[in-house]
Formats: sequence, C-alpha cells, structure tokens
Amino acid sequence: MRFMPLIILVLVGFSVPAMAQDLVAGKTKAAVCAACHGAEGVSVIPDYPNLAGQKVKYLESSIKAYRDGQRKHAVMSPMAAGLSDADILDLAAYFADLPAKK
Amino acid sequence: MRFMPLIILVLVGFSVPAMAQDLVAGKTKAAVCAACHGAEGVSVIPDYPNLAGQKVKYLESSIKAYRDGQRKHAVMSPMAAGLSDADILDLAAYFADLPAKK
Repeated sequence: MRFMPLIILVLVGFSVPAMAQDLVAGKTKAAVCAACHGAEGVSVIPDYPNLAGQKVKYLESSIKAYRDGQRKHAVMSPMAAGLSDADILDLAAYFADLPAKK
Repeated sequence: MRFMPLIILVLVGFSVPAMAQDLVAGKTKAAVCAACHGAEGVSVIPDYPNLAGQKVKYLESSIKAYRDGQRKHAVMSPMAAGLSDADILDLAAYFADLPAKK
C-alpha cells in the first residue's frame, strides 16, 4: 500500500483539466465582444460570426489564431492581442455555453 | 412614359441579388463537408466549427479565405481550392439555412 498516495495523486491529476475555464469570468471579459457578436453571442453584423453554442476548442483556437497572427482581421487582431491563454479559454467556454441561435 | 421600360429594368435589377444562391445545389455540394462538420452542420469533431445557422456572409468569406490563402488549414485549404464563387455561395446559403444547434 506504500504506492497508494502516488496512485491517488495520479488519479486526481487526470481528473483536473490542464486549465480550468471560468464561465463567470468569461461573461465579464466578453462584454467588449457584444458590439459585433451580440449580447448573447448571436452576431448583429452579417459579416461576423455567431459564437453562441460554437465548439469551445474551435473558439479557443480561433481567438489564439488572431492573437498569434495566423488569422488577421482589422478588429479581431487588436482585440485578441492582449489576451492570455486563460482569458481566451474563459471567453471560449462562455460563448460555447450560450444557446445556439440564428 | 418613354422611360417606363428603363424604370422597370432598374427596379427588377435591384430586386435580384448579384448572384443567386441555390440551397439544393448547396446540399449536394456539402456532402463532402459532413465528415468533419456533421450531416446537419453540427460538427462531430471538437476542433472544427458548427456551420448550421451561421451567418451566410461569414461562411462565404471564410471559405473564400481558405480558397484564396488568407486562412490556411491542412484539410480546409485543399477542400476549398477548387470551389467557384457560386459553389461557395451555395454552400454558405445551405449551412446558414440549417437550424443552429450545439
């Protein structure tokens, strides 16, 4: 039984995601997004995408692509420039959690 | 009344979009998209976006960005490479018309 603490530690380690997402923080950070993407993540501008109900991993990789320069957009690139990985995950989780609508 | 035909022509011209979209053709052309984006436009792969109910103009500009090289993706770039503007509009209209779901 001398390995039990190690086993428990490993199991706990596997049950915790690499970075926890925070929906409440995401909502706060998302306030600035509403002007284009709508208060509920359904875009008010035809050129811009709905975010509500989108896949969290896709949202995360998209915002990172703007931040890191793989995607470029006059509005999104500067918007994403100052975001940390944790900010991006919170935002992605918040929008993914909203009900999908047209 | 000698200008009437011209007036009618102008009014008809304004009522017809620059390029007509074809949902039926879009559905046929979208068959190949289902492997990643789902049969009903709801992605089966977390990294890939849902397309159902997305804004038609955003879908159109995204596929064009892949075709024209502003966006790059190992799967999407070759997928989009052979598409005409009409193909892209049909695809965008088809996916935008599907019910938005998570």
